[in-house]
Amino acid sequence: MMKLSFLAQTMQLAFEGEDKEVRSFAPLKDATSEHISFLSDPKLLDDLKTTKAGAVIVSPAFEGFVPSHCRLLVSDNPYLSMAYASKLFAKAPFDTSMPSNISPKAHVSHHVSIGSRSVVEEGSYIMPNVSIGADVRIGKNVTIYPNVVIYDNAIIGDSCMIQAGAVIGSDGFGYAHTKTGEHVKIYHHGNVILEEEVEIGANSTIDRAVFGSTIIKKGTKIDNLVQIGHNCEVGAYSIIVAQAGLAGSSKLGRNVVMGGQSATAGHLEIGDFATIAARGGVSKSIEGGKVYGGFPLTLQSEWLKNNAKLARFFKKN
Amino acid sequence: MMKLSFLAQTMQLAFEGEDKEVRSFAPLKDATSEHISFLSDPKLLDDLKTTKAGAVIVSPAFEGFVPSHCRLLVSDNPYLSMAYASKLFAKAPFDTSMPSNISPKAHVSHHVSIGSRSVVEEGSYIMPNVSIGADVRIGKNVTIYPNVVIYDNAIIGDSCMIQAGAVIGSDGFGYAHTKTGEHVKIYHHGNVILEEEVEIGANSTIDRAVFGSTIIKKGTKIDNLVQIGHNCEVGAYSIIVAQAGLAGSSKLGRNVVMGGQSATAGHLEIGDFATIAARGGVSKSIEGGKVYGGFPLTLQSEWLKNNAKLARFFKKN
Amino acid sequence: MMKLSFLAQTMQLAFEGEDKEVRSFAPLKDATSEHISFLSDPKLLDDLKTTKAGAVIVSPAFEGFVPSHCRLLVSDNPYLSMAYASKLFAKAPFDTSMPSNISPKAHVSHHVSIGSRSVVEEGSYIMPNVSIGADVRIGKNVTIYPNVVIYDNAIIGDSCMIQAGAVIGSDGFGYAHTKTGEHVKIYHHGNVILEEEVEIGANSTIDRAVFGSTIIKKGTKIDNLVQIGHNCEVGAYSIIVAQAGLAGSSKLGRNVVMGGQSATAGHLEIGDFATIAARGGVSKSIEGGKVYGGFPLTLQSEWLKNNAKLARFFKKN
Repeated sequence: MMKLSFLAQTMQLAFEGEDKEVRSFAPLKDATSEHISFLSDPKLLDDLKTTKAGAVIVSPAFEGFVPSHCRLLVSDNPYLSMAYASKLFAKAPFDTSMPSNISPKAHVSHHVSIGSRSVVEEGSYIMPNVSIGADVRIGKNVTIYPNVVIYDNAIIGDSCMIQAGAVIGSDGFGYAHTKTGEHVKIYHHGNVILEEEVEIGANSTIDRAVFGSTIIKKGTKIDNLVQIGHNCEVGAYSIIVAQAGLAGSSKLGRNVVMGGQSATAGHLEIGDFATIAARGGVSKSIEGGKVYGGFPLTLQSEWLKNNAKLARFFKKN
Repeated sequence: MMKLSFLAQTMQLAFEGEDKEVRSFAPLKDATSEHISFLSDPKLLDDLKTTKAGAVIVSPAFEGFVPSHCRLLVSDNPYLSMAYASKLFAKAPFDTSMPSNISPKAHVSHHVSIGSRSVVEEGSYIMPNVSIGADVRIGKNVTIYPNVVIYDNAIIGDSCMIQAGAVIGSDGFGYAHTKTGEHVKIYHHGNVILEEEVEIGANSTIDRAVFGSTIIKKGTKIDNLVQIGHNCEVGAYSIIVAQAGLAGSSKLGRNVVMGGQSATAGHLEIGDFATIAARGGVSKSIEGGKVYGGFPLTLQSEWLKNNAKLARFFKKN
Repeated sequence: MMKLSFLAQTMQLAFEGEDKEVRSFAPLKDATSEHISFLSDPKLLDDLKTTKAGAVIVSPAFEGFVPSHCRLLVSDNPYLSMAYASKLFAKAPFDTSMPSNISPKAHVSHHVSIGSRSVVEEGSYIMPNVSIGADVRIGKNVTIYPNVVIYDNAIIGDSCMIQAGAVIGSDGFGYAHTKTGEHVKIYHHGNVILEEEVEIGANSTIDRAVFGSTIIKKGTKIDNLVQIGHNCEVGAYSIIVAQAGLAGSSKLGRNVVMGGQSATAGHLEIGDFATIAARGGVSKSIEGGKVYGGFPLTLQSEWLKNNAKLARFFKKN
């Protein structure tokens, strides 16, 4: 628990009135009286009006919309203020001061580190030089190849397989920016969830959420050197081929196929059973059931036709 | 050894007649009487007619072509049946229950794990936190930087150098698919072979073969964050620059150059002394001795001319 | 120290006259009497004329420009000769024969290897399975996540954060080539410097310099799976998004933004406050303060207009 007065001081914000303790940050709509929250995107104004947060950081323009039960902190840049404060709530990662809980029917090899309170269930097989953080849950019959890293609070479903060198739960790439162009890290308090029968390829990286979870749903298979940004949701039975990249907060449906070196921008949706050909670049939401390709993205059939049209143009000119 | 009746039960296939034990899977043309094989690609029908396999899985249409010495398993989807069975033949990876064989003239640093029966020859230098599987052979004067992972059965030739975090022998990205869109892992039984004087860059990944070997030939140099798919063959003295990707079963000749972020589709051939410029995307076989670029791929000289034509078009329109 | 007569023998070059000992290689303009240097690029002829090197390797055409105080080695291919000799000056990496110097106020977790004479200052936090080479300097309040590798001689500034699996200081991708197409490794004698408050993403790779330093300046943030080539210089407060790649010797100004999967060729400059959109490919130097995109690169605003023009063309044809 942390006093609001102390937080305000760290963020260099004025704070008046009765002090209060908060446990951590949360988005407006998830916050309870133990949380502090913030409004940086005016689209979330309705969330502000109905928030249950114990305290909020808002810019002067939105002061009037703060519910009366909320303590108020006013900032010219609530996102930046939140970034400064996020560090205060961050725990020391990969803590090993407390015991872990490993099933006697699990196998743990040499030079493995498993953090405080983490659980490894029966039938799981953890190979050498793996590093597992604190409060991680590893289900049944999970196979973890050497030198994998799993950050704090991750949940690894039954029968998952993680190939060597993959990193599950690294910090998302999120910063607030000062007026003079410096970047202030937003400490990530969310986690990664792999549902059952997910496979992650060698040296792939899956960032954990700022708040909440980055989720890879049941039966999805991810190849080598793939990047999954923070707060993404990848639907069940999807296939993501090597060196593809998903920017933050993208949401893929079920049985989506992303070809090799394809990519998505952030904050978009891809419908069920969509296929993105190799190198396809998705920059806005697309509907399911179709095959896309190219950059800018079109239907793959169009992309092939367009290439033929260009080839004729080049021949004539 | 595993009984056919047991395999059939696992694959939910009917099996009648005299039982038989098989040791593992193999492709039709490599199989002996101790192997079970399968036909999923009709182009391999000739291989079926002449196979020496002890047993085969085929679809009903091809039943008539199975040699009389083969036990027969009939499946509507032999590839899927094979995937289910492949798991049964998979051994626990990175086993360390038996001793390894390390030359007294080799150097092995802290926190290194070396699997059962693996050999490290004289002059080799293995740095901290490296994980080496079982039945691996590391030749003379090999340099392995920290946190490298080498999967079971790999063969690392004399004077190879593997930079930190590289993964040699991870499972290829191969699945069979059920009617309802689930992916069934094909357990990989092949390996990776690096011939002499190969260098692998930091955090690159080289998948092992389904059957047989992924081969990187003598003197080839691979940069960082490169992906080499299963069953690829990269010719001698090739150069593969950072973040390039080779899809499965591609075959490169000698002295091929792949520029940064270039890529190939699977199952194609690139001739000797071909150069692919940075970002070039190879989607079908190309002859050697030329410089290619662009995506779709053309001769690099054409790509440059075409860009100039487009620039003129944009100016006029 | 190594005798010139021995070096000459290794490089298969003739050497006459008085012998001399040299300590290592250096570029012409940095060399002192204890160094051997070489001229392979005629553009550096002025550096040859004024070099303080104790010895130089030059081709016959440039013999006449060697200062009289320099010992002379004549080679048809000075770059190749240098490559052969570079191996002789290379020390065994990640040496742990001598003690390191770790602040009692630093935290070092399980299975960490720290090389000879390396320093870890107060407040730094090193997680499991990290491998740190010799003569590394880790400043104050540095956070190093699990399975990171830091090569010899790296300097990590105060308050840096390195996410799991990142590799700092791997050998650059540099080779000299023989007439018959073999590649001869150039051993890298430089290092990597991260200034203060730099963050490096999971499984990213930063190659060390051939000579001198690869430098990431203050406050720069690098995402996952990024490749930074040898001898690059990335200016302060830059942002490099996932899967971007910088080829060797590129120089970025301050507050440069490189989008996801973007890239640069080598030996170019990007001005302050330039932004490269996702997938942008920079192939020559560009001025700062603008937004670029596409491959070939244009202004991003042009790229968008050109795509619209192409879309109309495709509709009509």
